[in-house]
Amino acid sequence: MPYLDHAATTPLRPEATQAMQPYLGERFGNPLGVHAVSRRAKDAIEEARERVAAALGADHPLEIVFTGGGTDADNLAIIGATLVGSGGVVTTAVEHDAILESARFVGRLGHRVEIVGVDGEGRVDPDAVAAAVDGETAVVSVMTANNETGVVQPVRQIADAIGSSGALLHTDAIQAFASLPVTATDTGADLISISAHKIGGPQGVGCLYVRDGVKLEPVLHGGGQELGRRSGTHNVAGIIGFAAAVDAAVADRRRYSSVVGAARDRFEAELADRVKVDVTGAHTERLVSHAHLRFPGVPSETLLIRLDQEGVSAAAGAACHSGARLTSHVLAAMGIPADMGAEYVRFSFGWTDTTETAVEAADLVAGVVESLQ
Amino acid sequence: MPYLDHAATTPLRPEATQAMQPYLGERFGNPLGVHAVSRRAKDAIEEARERVAAALGADHPLEIVFTGGGTDADNLAIIGATLVGSGGVVTTAVEHDAILESARFVGRLGHRVEIVGVDGEGRVDPDAVAAAVDGETAVVSVMTANNETGVVQPVRQIADAIGSSGALLHTDAIQAFASLPVTATDTGADLISISAHKIGGPQGVGCLYVRDGVKLEPVLHGGGQELGRRSGTHNVAGIIGFAAAVDAAVADRRRYSSVVGAARDRFEAELADRVKVDVTGAHTERLVSHAHLRFPGVPSETLLIRLDQEGVSAAAGAACHSGARLTSHVLAAMGIPADMGAEYVRFSFGWTDTTETAVEAADLVAGVVESLQ
Repeated sequence: MPYLDHAATTPLRPEATQAMQPYLGERFGNPLGVHAVSRRAKDAIEEARERVAAALGADHPLEIVFTGGGTDADNLAIIGATLVGSGGVVTTAVEHDAILESARFVGRLGHRVEIVGVDGEGRVDPDAVAAAVDGETAVVSVMTANNETGVVQPVRQIADAIGSSGALLHTDAIQAFASLPVTATDTGADLISISAHKIGGPQGVGCLYVRDGVKLEPVLHGGGQELGRRSGTHNVAGIIGFAAAVDAAVADRRRYSSVVGAARDRFEAELADRVKVDVTGAHTERLVSHAHLRFPGVPSETLLIRLDQEGVSAAAGAACHSGARLTSHVLAAMGIPADMGAEYVRFSFGWTDTTETAVEAADLVAGVVESLQ
Repeated sequence: MPYLDHAATTPLRPEATQAMQPYLGERFGNPLGVHAVSRRAKDAIEEARERVAAALGADHPLEIVFTGGGTDADNLAIIGATLVGSGGVVTTAVEHDAILESARFVGRLGHRVEIVGVDGEGRVDPDAVAAAVDGETAVVSVMTANNETGVVQPVRQIADAIGSSGALLHTDAIQAFASLPVTATDTGADLISISAHKIGGPQGVGCLYVRDGVKLEPVLHGGGQELGRRSGTHNVAGIIGFAAAVDAAVADRRRYSSVVGAARDRFEAELADRVKVDVTGAHTERLVSHAHLRFPGVPSETLLIRLDQEGVSAAAGAACHSGARLTSHVLAAMGIPADMGAEYVRFSFGWTDTTETAVEAADLVAGVVESLQ
């Protein structure tokens, strides 16, 4: 049963599942207490914080704010950076809804929101981003790679282009982190979101890297956990599983790039041999995990139902969005007309895939597409 | 090693740990997809929702909004109910910081915030709450029982007192739910927060009951999960563990009330036989789980350190608050002077306790207090 929806969520890596178990059992403490049971939990999350910090190239572990997931981290970046003052947001038309809806929220509160468009491949122009920034911009948010298409954005060039404007740079690296060595140093970002369940960790946990000295208004208010930046009792088991997944993903990245990339490439090649297919982002940098494909004449809705009947799991548009939406905002931003936009399917590969799983999947997919095209 | 900090977090019930396991393994789907792996996850969370809804006396499962924990639920109640319009908040001086800090946040955004005081036992007067409500009040928030002292509030009488004012009634039942059968019907509340990790479920998950027809502005913006009320990929394993803990806690409540109550009472009686001790809330309704005690002449900080050395886990003030705070805001609101306030310790019992564990703990605690008093 080919599972080609790893971008929606990927199976837990065994390292993560195993690391979590003690914290779902005898190591059950709340890190904030003043006794041995709490200290053991606190030590565990601080050790996890050090490992996640190292993976993200942080200068200090306390630059990592553990959150309840990627959406929570993205909200903290956008809402936190704007509400701490009166500044605005500059972002792109192809961001995840966690960014776009957070931006719309602060827009309703009176903050300026500028949405920069993208080219036909879904890439944003660093100069266009810089041109949208002014002295009142609090934060610029550009994703490392798009969750639907896998297309990689020029985040480092954007950091250079916005330079000394005073605006913070945030990058949502949630989809990219399994494939790319995203770090604060390399990207130049002040804020970086990652999510556990996209990299082989559990659902419901993630983090925001917050460069030392950056002030954020919290989104979740309460007991003052995470130095007041994200209140709520720590999900200790989740944080431990997250750190284990980060370590495993980083250790596995070279193999992942090679094996998953080869699987994806073979999948696309097998399909191209048998059916008419367009590949999004084929002429630009994209994640090795993503095959975002259009089968001309085949509505994605029909295709997905048929694939599901064959046991193939795939997605139309972003799986993080509830319910149906006829045209993806990402495809619309790329200038793709609605009729074409309704023919795209995302096949996303992950750490469990190999060329063998890809060939098996391609055979099933090609058979279904042949019957429909 | 007596663990008497169940109010901070309690060990997972085996039912919860076991129920979660498949969802940390082969049942790893994101509920929002359009294929069998997703449907299996979606079916599981919708079945969990039905069970949590039944436990809370909801009319419909969709009145349950799954969140990333109790703080997340409390923030959604206060921020969500006020920002949906321009209304204010009425709450009490003894609420958890998740409520008080959320209220301060909406206060900074220009919404009116009224804090009602309490009597010497920590009880709020329903008429005082009603008097603070006006036509512009969006939400009244009064906890079911206090997390530090265990003192129960007259939520039903508050519902009756605010009657047809148009304000919503929220109750934070996070601490109470293990002990008391909190339901929408009995409390008359429109919004109820509960948290998994206080009742034998995992950390990082909880819910807000939202009465049908109540509109809330979301706090976490994004993919529109939970009918747009709380975005973010579902923590499927966490939700399954939460529902299992809710079921187990409800099924166990009669035994819990009897056995945990007897353990707490025996603990207090043993201490009273050997040392000078004041019991908070002794003359009013309080949770069976809580022994909030003052040992005159013994600073809680010193006592907690000595208890920790003896292997006894207890707490001063609320464990959900980071770092030290000399006087609890709850004790201050009860009119307790700072010097007395520094002598209170919370011993909280849970589902693993019996009279035997209580006697063993009392012997250790009395020994330490005798050496200090």
